[in-house]
Amino acid sequence: MMKKNLGATHALRAVFAIRDKILSGQYSPGDRLGEVAIAEELNISRTPVRDALSHLAGEGMLERASTGGFVIRDFGFDDIADSIELRGILEGTVARLAAERGASKVRMNKLDKIILSIDECFDTEKFKVNRTLYAERNAEFHEEFGKLSGSEVMERELSRVMKMPFASPSAFLSNKKESRAYYLELCTAQQQHRDILLAIAKGQGTRAEAIARAHANLAMVSLGETLAINPLKFTSQNSKSK
Amino acid sequence: MMKKNLGATHALRAVFAIRDKILSGQYSPGDRLGEVAIAEELNISRTPVRDALSHLAGEGMLERASTGGFVIRDFGFDDIADSIELRGILEGTVARLAAERGASKVRMNKLDKIILSIDECFDTEKFKVNRTLYAERNAEFHEEFGKLSGSEVMERELSRVMKMPFASPSAFLSNKKESRAYYLELCTAQQQHRDILLAIAKGQGTRAEAIARAHANLAMVSLGETLAINPLKFTSQNSKSK
Amino acid sequence: MMKKNLGATHALRAVFAIRDKILSGQYSPGDRLGEVAIAEELNISRTPVRDALSHLAGEGMLERASTGGFVIRDFGFDDIADSIELRGILEGTVARLAAERGASKVRMNKLDKIILSIDECFDTEKFKVNRTLYAERNAEFHEEFGKLSGSEVMERELSRVMKMPFASPSAFLSNKKESRAYYLELCTAQQQHRDILLAIAKGQGTRAEAIARAHANLAMVSLGETLAINPLKFTSQNSKSK
Amino acid sequence: MMKKNLGATHALRAVFAIRDKILSGQYSPGDRLGEVAIAEELNISRTPVRDALSHLAGEGMLERASTGGFVIRDFGFDDIADSIELRGILEGTVARLAAERGASKVRMNKLDKIILSIDECFDTEKFKVNRTLYAERNAEFHEEFGKLSGSEVMERELSRVMKMPFASPSAFLSNKKESRAYYLELCTAQQQHRDILLAIAKGQGTRAEAIARAHANLAMVSLGETLAINPLKFTSQNSKSK
Repeated sequence: MMKKNLGATHALRAVFAIRDKILSGQYSPGDRLGEVAIAEELNISRTPVRDALSHLAGEGMLERASTGGFVIRDFGFDDIADSIELRGILEGTVARLAAERGASKVRMNKLDKIILSIDECFDTEKFKVNRTLYAERNAEFHEEFGKLSGSEVMERELSRVMKMPFASPSAFLSNKKESRAYYLELCTAQQQHRDILLAIAKGQGTRAEAIARAHANLAMVSLGETLAINPLKFTSQNSKSK
Repeated sequence: MMKKNLGATHALRAVFAIRDKILSGQYSPGDRLGEVAIAEELNISRTPVRDALSHLAGEGMLERASTGGFVIRDFGFDDIADSIELRGILEGTVARLAAERGASKVRMNKLDKIILSIDECFDTEKFKVNRTLYAERNAEFHEEFGKLSGSEVMERELSRVMKMPFASPSAFLSNKKESRAYYLELCTAQQQHRDILLAIAKGQGTRAEAIARAHANLAMVSLGETLAINPLKFTSQNSKSK
Repeated sequence: MMKKNLGATHALRAVFAIRDKILSGQYSPGDRLGEVAIAEELNISRTPVRDALSHLAGEGMLERASTGGFVIRDFGFDDIADSIELRGILEGTVARLAAERGASKVRMNKLDKIILSIDECFDTEKFKVNRTLYAERNAEFHEEFGKLSGSEVMERELSRVMKMPFASPSAFLSNKKESRAYYLELCTAQQQHRDILLAIAKGQGTRAEAIARAHANLAMVSLGETLAINPLKFTSQNSKSK
Repeated sequence: MMKKNLGATHALRAVFAIRDKILSGQYSPGDRLGEVAIAEELNISRTPVRDALSHLAGEGMLERASTGGFVIRDFGFDDIADSIELRGILEGTVARLAAERGASKVRMNKLDKIILSIDECFDTEKFKVNRTLYAERNAEFHEEFGKLSGSEVMERELSRVMKMPFASPSAFLSNKKESRAYYLELCTAQQQHRDILLAIAKGQGTRAEAIARAHANLAMVSLGETLAINPLKFTSQNSKSK
């Protein structure tokens, strides 16, 4: 989902920064985002900011205003949670169908290579992760993964769902936290990439589906942690009481 | 999905008749459907034919031609199978979430009443089913069911998926077969309606999800039987070899 | 589980009759069962009664008294429910593993033949089932099915679990009810036999597991219906409150 | 499963050492294990060796010889794999039932405390784990966990299965490997302990079952890694070709 031309470090940092401000409540639903102001604040040029805004609109966090420019979309915690759940369900189905119907060797090899390239994002000595690179390659993995079952219907649906608020596989990455816990979390995520492919290769559909669901749920957990520190400003007014 | 005003016997019969002709290959993808010709052939007026065509477009089997009127959509067996699979997955998720989060009593009661009204479609003496009525009330059940988890995201997605080719819960009903086997099949479907609600009431999410998936799969089985007799004319050229 | 030499009509009728008396509370836990009295009551000779008692001990409903003879075992509704659940879980696992690892053609053919022989138990004109025959062949199906995954561990465990109270696949058959509803219930059970094998043949492990679990649950439902009419006398004192 | 009096460092080291020798093929099925020889080799007294042998017999890896003493049991890789699978299935069921039926607060609190005590086994600065302590407390967690669903049937079955070869939750711990990868593996296992309880607390049965299955599968993965280095000597002659 993350477009190649967004790989530019500046644009991705802008994505992280704006996302954090939405989650922390510094921006509210309906707020208009000005390119110039953001560019100045982050001390980068306007082009990467424009790319970042466009990317966040694709993720469903912003929407284009009728008067031009972008505003923060109005959504509650339930919408976010259910969108992530939905991605897990669809990726789980792709995993199960790939295991049951058999996946093409070419696609499996391609995914294996992406996994190796994600390994390179981890500095196992200093316990740090290159997040810009991780976001890019993780997005590449999930985009490629969506094609694995050979079902055009599932591929199309999944690609649509990934554009919902926070349902993008890289939506949980942020600038903020830099900790051992975070490092371990990304290790777990990367291990799940491997385990999903292994289960598919062995024809274990139930297991492949379960891991893919757990993988999406990790984003949910991560989001929950972020929100525990910065409770979503607009949650109370939007989310339904159950 | 089946609109109330379609309840008219004539319109629903037209739906069944046209669907059968598509499945049996009498109509091919791209064929244009003329209101007048169909009305004459079925010996009914043009208004119910227009309703039927509009309904079948909503199910994804026809599409509006740029020049007005409707043409048969081009889709293969895989698309149909995957759309039904997708409905099963989403209805399964609604069932599971309703069991886990708890479903509103008002909605559960409403569904119970619809189930009782479906019972009335069965003539247990003559082993016959009033299919027009069944189609209407079954559609009502599934439309109401989509709201049961309280998740707007799931409700919206499900309602969208039901408009895909053959993914509508009543898409497998046809004029053709009238047999003991068919009667038993609808008994099974109706029993599944009951079992899903029972599992939800008991908070058994895994079971509720499994039955809902099996319920959608019944449509798949039924379609397979129909196609075994009348192999889908346009299957070979459209479906991918696996 | 049902031994061949039990096929004798008299012995199986004795099994049904004694089981009904336990469920209806005419016998209580600890009650001693006398061969002579039962033989007289059912107007059959003592040999089939002895076979029936031995069979019910194998099902876990009776236990051998230290002084010889059999007494009713002490168990609550929870034990029964959990034993049936456990059988469903293990048969589900056998189904899933068979789908994932591939099942031997010889065994699949054997199961197909047993299914055809079960078909013969149904009188589709009069809507009646030959229950003695059904019990025998159904037991044969489940015994053979336990070997399908090729896992000796699963086969051994399953065979052990089937000896728990009411966990035998034929434990829910009784003399009492003779109704349309009962006929449909057995039709559903037989259809599930077919669907499990079909899912395995297609390599659909998740689906095969789900149907096998639902199949065991049918016994639970049937038991619940019986108990709704004849509440298990010894339930209250034995079952845990949840 | 790990008895308190085995907590003694010496006994547990003996358990690890003997297990490694079985896995590495230094001991073969049928080999007799002498207390004196092992005590001398490990330079410890005979009492902890006797405890270790008794513990390994409880795990199903040794059996008591008719002439006294212990011999290595004869089992293939399939038996091990299926036993671990079986434990995952049963623990998964306990997790699901606990989520669906509701778990007692007292038991949940007890498990929470055990999890905190497992945290203490991790040296997050040096990336090391105190394995003796981990083995003990992990065993305590799984023993307590088996009671969580309130089902006596499941508790009894699970406790029986944990005595099968390698199905014990601590059977995959060994003296050998001491690496970053191993540290991360135990972090993942401990995170799963937390995630299972969280899913149960939220009433998410499907998720709880899936994580519990994945947790048992981790033992399988770990075993596979060990065997990749030291292929099980007696595998070829015992395991079935699939």
